[in-house]
Amino acid sequence: MGKKADERAKKDKSKGKGPTKGRSKDNKRGKVEGTLSAKELKKLREKESQKVSKAKASKPSKAPKAPKASKASKASKASKSAKSTTPASLRDLLRFGPGSSLAAIDPSSTPGYEGKESAAVDEMEAMQDGLGELQERLYAEAKGGGKRSLLLVVQGMDTSGKGGIMRHVVGAFDPQGVRHTAFKAPTSQERAHPFLWRITNALPSVGEIGVFDRSHYEDVLIVRVHDLVPRAQWARRYAQINAWERRVSARGATIVKIMLHISKDEQKARLTERLDRPDKHWKFNPGDIDERAHWDDYMAAYEAALGKCSTEVAPWYVVPANHKWYARYAVTSLVLDHLTEMDPQWPAATFDVAEQQARLAASD
Amino acid sequence: MGKKADERAKKDKSKGKGPTKGRSKDNKRGKVEGTLSAKELKKLREKESQKVSKAKASKPSKAPKAPKASKASKASKASKSAKSTTPASLRDLLRFGPGSSLAAIDPSSTPGYEGKESAAVDEMEAMQDGLGELQERLYAEAKGGGKRSLLLVVQGMDTSGKGGIMRHVVGAFDPQGVRHTAFKAPTSQERAHPFLWRITNALPSVGEIGVFDRSHYEDVLIVRVHDLVPRAQWARRYAQINAWERRVSARGATIVKIMLHISKDEQKARLTERLDRPDKHWKFNPGDIDERAHWDDYMAAYEAALGKCSTEVAPWYVVPANHKWYARYAVTSLVLDHLTEMDPQWPAATFDVAEQQARLAASD
Repeated sequence: MGKKADERAKKDKSKGKGPTKGRSKDNKRGKVEGTLSAKELKKLREKESQKVSKAKASKPSKAPKAPKASKASKASKASKSAKSTTPASLRDLLRFGPGSSLAAIDPSSTPGYEGKESAAVDEMEAMQDGLGELQERLYAEAKGGGKRSLLLVVQGMDTSGKGGIMRHVVGAFDPQGVRHTAFKAPTSQERAHPFLWRITNALPSVGEIGVFDRSHYEDVLIVRVHDLVPRAQWARRYAQINAWERRVSARGATIVKIMLHISKDEQKARLTERLDRPDKHWKFNPGDIDERAHWDDYMAAYEAALGKCSTEVAPWYVVPANHKWYARYAVTSLVLDHLTEMDPQWPAATFDVAEQQARLAASD
Repeated sequence: MGKKADERAKKDKSKGKGPTKGRSKDNKRGKVEGTLSAKELKKLREKESQKVSKAKASKPSKAPKAPKASKASKASKASKSAKSTTPASLRDLLRFGPGSSLAAIDPSSTPGYEGKESAAVDEMEAMQDGLGELQERLYAEAKGGGKRSLLLVVQGMDTSGKGGIMRHVVGAFDPQGVRHTAFKAPTSQERAHPFLWRITNALPSVGEIGVFDRSHYEDVLIVRVHDLVPRAQWARRYAQINAWERRVSARGATIVKIMLHISKDEQKARLTERLDRPDKHWKFNPGDIDERAHWDDYMAAYEAALGKCSTEVAPWYVVPANHKWYARYAVTSLVLDHLTEMDPQWPAATFDVAEQQARLAASD
């Protein structure tokens, strides 16, 4: 860029660009406003998720911090109408492990949620405020030297609703702190590398939320169903994936893996809709019908992958997804739960606050 | 990736991954539901933006398409409370051109909007539904061979609210169709290339919304203020930028450039807040105070850049930004206006619909 470029590089433009989507709209300067600590958030969230339908509506003044009126009233609205169980149980309920059976999971069920769709939507909005706040903390923590990130992996058959998760769950995050990658069939360049090469390149930076729409699991799903590589080669990949995810986790990424589980009938209905509506034709591919013929093989491949690769550091959750609203609610809740557990912290100032306040006050 | 890789590559995974964030929540399968054409959207938008405060609330049944109840009622809500002028005039009002003066623009003004903040927020929500629909069309059009994209460039002094635009305006788009880039001080690799190199690399693909948080304009702003390259070198850049933007436009990108215009006093207040709140310390950089000393030089550099580089194909808009709600409203409106003018179209099916319907019906 020319001379004095070093001086320019010294200007730290990476400061102050953080995600703050969770901010309430009435967050005006001058209010003595604290932000919720992650612990307070967790408490709020547990509270809002408990069965309180019989209780009177709590007044906004009962919220953890009075000035957070907007956030508090949303949460209160959700708790009034929600009939869900606590989120911790949702995490347990949806966890898939070795020995779990996909066939035993009803795609039309709504584990851990007995309320109505409208209540789930309200509750989801309240949870999204929490997501925004925690995302900002995670981002800020990284600016202060933190090494952590979150990686959300989303898998599912065609029409299972991955796009809806991207819009309605990932869309709730501040786009500044999100790294979203949709993995398509690998390019010739990508095929020239080991299968985890392009995945590694797409990992989130510290402080970021990484989102994979499809992932390295395609390399033991479509690849296995269609024998795109020899069996011996794909069979080794489960262990390779586990080792890779362990390394990624050890470097600071919290990994959350979601399979959106729909029934074959539901897929037929969704594909039918795509064919019936001219504004959905662009989403349809005749090959989608060919793939349906391999449904049972895909289910077997999913069960093998999820069973072999659901670990402590990178758990798999199977989310029944015939009801789109439930799938979105459940994924929001799972992500919020993991972020809450991470408990990211505002970093300490790297300057003398009083000194800078004096300098600023003295400036024009 | 091994043998049969070609077969795998044939599976077009790029289908059906489009942005559909604008979809109303009650968009259920089986409804005979048309989507708004861009022209209808424009009409709806003009209608909702007209001064109708004296008129009775229009019933939802008067909305262009009855099934779009959710969207229509939002629009109706907005039109009831809004006192704005028509959006076309907003575009005219904020356009900056050769001979325009920054000093003549009051950062606390709200050109084209006489309503209250709450009404602007309602109106913005209605407009965001329109943004979502148009984004999906743009994305779909590209899947059908379209070559168009939108590039939104956002510039402004520290604390001018660029991050808020990313959260509240860009955040309204489906993240699957957005390419967001925050330009920091260039790396040594970037400095080894011409200044437009890294910018070109960050351009949106066809069908995408590209968003620049800072941009190539830094190369005639901070660079000029601090003489980071010789005057002769930065002086040539205005023409280089115009030529580059003409090429980008000719390849199909609609370019919209926004400067968020705050006052020096407002910046002081916002920096003061960052110092007063521990959860905002991470956004503060002592260098921000040093930069304030160059305020007038920055304004001169902005006026020169905006005056020289506001062209038909890549106009500059100066958005008064002391009121954050107004800045967000105005940027939403400007982007919606340009997208509406682009009028992206659903692509025609590339297959025989009846044939595929029969195949699907015959499948399990």
